[in-house]
Amino acid sequence: MVQTSTSLANGVRDEPPTPDFDCYPCTVAARDARVEGDLVRIEWDDGVVSRFHLLWLRDNAADEDTLNPVTREQTLDISTLPAELHAASARIDPTGALAVHWLPEDRTVRYHQGWLRAFDYSNDALEWGRLPDAEPWTPASLPAPLDFDGPGFLERDEVLGEALGAVLAHGIARLRGVPTEPGTVGRVARRIGPIRETNFGLLFDVRAKPDADSNAYTTLELLPHTDLPTREYEPGLQLLHCLENTARGGRAVMVDGLAVAGDIRREAPEHWHALTTIAWNFSNRARDTDYRFRSPIIVLDDRGEVAELRVNNFLRAPLSAPFDVVEAAYAGLLELQSRLRDERYRMTFDYRPGDLVVFDNRRVLHGREAFDQSGGARWLQGCYLERDELRSRWRVLARARRRETLRQS
Amino acid sequence: MVQTSTSLANGVRDEPPTPDFDCYPCTVAARDARVEGDLVRIEWDDGVVSRFHLLWLRDNAADEDTLNPVTREQTLDISTLPAELHAASARIDPTGALAVHWLPEDRTVRYHQGWLRAFDYSNDALEWGRLPDAEPWTPASLPAPLDFDGPGFLERDEVLGEALGAVLAHGIARLRGVPTEPGTVGRVARRIGPIRETNFGLLFDVRAKPDADSNAYTTLELLPHTDLPTREYEPGLQLLHCLENTARGGRAVMVDGLAVAGDIRREAPEHWHALTTIAWNFSNRARDTDYRFRSPIIVLDDRGEVAELRVNNFLRAPLSAPFDVVEAAYAGLLELQSRLRDERYRMTFDYRPGDLVVFDNRRVLHGREAFDQSGGARWLQGCYLERDELRSRWRVLARARRRETLRQS
Repeated sequence: MVQTSTSLANGVRDEPPTPDFDCYPCTVAARDARVEGDLVRIEWDDGVVSRFHLLWLRDNAADEDTLNPVTREQTLDISTLPAELHAASARIDPTGALAVHWLPEDRTVRYHQGWLRAFDYSNDALEWGRLPDAEPWTPASLPAPLDFDGPGFLERDEVLGEALGAVLAHGIARLRGVPTEPGTVGRVARRIGPIRETNFGLLFDVRAKPDADSNAYTTLELLPHTDLPTREYEPGLQLLHCLENTARGGRAVMVDGLAVAGDIRREAPEHWHALTTIAWNFSNRARDTDYRFRSPIIVLDDRGEVAELRVNNFLRAPLSAPFDVVEAAYAGLLELQSRLRDERYRMTFDYRPGDLVVFDNRRVLHGREAFDQSGGARWLQGCYLERDELRSRWRVLARARRRETLRQS
Repeated sequence: MVQTSTSLANGVRDEPPTPDFDCYPCTVAARDARVEGDLVRIEWDDGVVSRFHLLWLRDNAADEDTLNPVTREQTLDISTLPAELHAASARIDPTGALAVHWLPEDRTVRYHQGWLRAFDYSNDALEWGRLPDAEPWTPASLPAPLDFDGPGFLERDEVLGEALGAVLAHGIARLRGVPTEPGTVGRVARRIGPIRETNFGLLFDVRAKPDADSNAYTTLELLPHTDLPTREYEPGLQLLHCLENTARGGRAVMVDGLAVAGDIRREAPEHWHALTTIAWNFSNRARDTDYRFRSPIIVLDDRGEVAELRVNNFLRAPLSAPFDVVEAAYAGLLELQSRLRDERYRMTFDYRPGDLVVFDNRRVLHGREAFDQSGGARWLQGCYLERDELRSRWRVLARARRRETLRQS
């Protein structure tokens, strides 16, 4: 039998878990528990031993004096607990819960077994909120974005979840048959989460215009790039929806920045070093805004993995780096830019009206070939969101699927 | 005489600078220029010698084959230039411009003196886009936020610029006498830039409600915190506008995270180490969203300075750190949380209807005392923006002031 409980309010409850939060199955029974100095030690039926710090346990109590039962958010400030806080006893109670008696509070708090096992940091660290792995690609492995049904994305959670999974894995997915009524891209975006408005508007129109304030709004070729590297917060997601495309040329170009970065790391470590350490300047050119940001082109996270790219030839401002690294900086830039022209990285396709691409703006570089509007027009409508919204929506959908699986087991 | 030119299109122009971009005064004359290997060397009248790499100069040419004259954005991809690119000559021409003749392109490009001197990375590195310095404060140095006239902020650029300067310096400013019509906070925000919508809406109402999905929407005390540390992109700016306040209690508490962090760094280096290196988990508790983020509480930039704080007792999720650092992690947290209760850091004030505070959500922690609504009500309306918008607006206003100064000189 699978017992479940709520994760965030981890108290043992008699009623079934609330339908809206994670559930933690109890697949192994706790056999014994005791206090050992500043720790509680639990032995499980499969021989595993877990150790939890007393303060960690007290902090994560789910009783009403610690958590607000309505919001499920913490109200206790642990810095106000008595310094002599300790556990008088710890045991596995008849329901299978860990029961800890706290002094001088003189209060027993119960902890759900499945929850304890899931958060057992003394053994395998919990992969908290794990998402599908990113899978770097080239056109040889992924000749075109995975396609999903546009109306299905708007109406069915199953399609939404699958498409978002593709965005997490490949950094891109394509919807087909999305109604070409202007503004629909906003409806598609809100299936994921709130739109991130910028100085280009809530939605923006990508089409050639006379007094363009960006190369995007001309007929020029655009080398694959990330949008808005001029901001501290480069948008995490971009949606582009084709409403009209009768122009000649203008073929879409998509490059997986993860794949290019990975190859540079392996094949040209000196350029990798320059691209990940030397800060470039980015700035916009509009008359009434002045966005500037300074960052390496490849930004690493604290584990040394690629967190994001900031690549944009038309928003680069003059490099102001120490004299001695300028040569290396340019050598790295040339290495990167020449790879962006290398066919082995360039996924290309033509937009058809009703196509809508969703891509990770900080990972997948987007560009286009030049186009000629003399015999037609090209009109894309777009908007931005954060990666946070993608991840949140994906987790909520995954949670619903997990709940369904638990219910059936 | 002060000559000026445009910065981003740096070509020498005969016409006066366009009114919308930075201007670089020529305060020192260039005496001589020549090519030296891969560099151009310039001697100035004050004895300074500047050296620019050829590729840097070619990249920053402002002619129409390099920059699109309408968008002023780069069109040249320097990775497509011939490998044998070099400068046949460099000289100061009769207008004072640096003229470089490029081969095999066989093209002369002219560079504005003032612009070259401003971007001279071979001497003092340019402090590109420098903003007012952040000034850490405690209530002893800043007993209350600097006050600005609300209607003035909405109508006069001078007030707007001064208030934004205070936000850059102190992380907080207060407007008084803002009309208490609901929605006005959105008007105030849009004076700075686009609003960042979240799952709480474009604008959010901070008042106690029965089925609260956040402790913010109860009458509970809130320990000073940053909003939305559950996101990769914690909002940079927050606005809170008091529409009504007849409740008892609910006094606002503001703490400068920069000051607290600086003191911990000096006085308790082991806690500083824990707070800047051990990642905590943050997650929200709503039924239809699942935002999670993992980060140290004090986030440093690449120079080791405080980039942002992520402090929120009610959005912390269970710590899943390596077993051996759990004790240090909690010790650091307790150190921080007890300082958040220390009067020497807590600026407190009562909201009056029409008060509106603008603060850096990632620097200045905001909280409140508990309140009692039995004899009245407390209603704040708020929204978020990015630091990018603050910085952009401030620079545009500063540029206008600088232009005015140049015009008068």
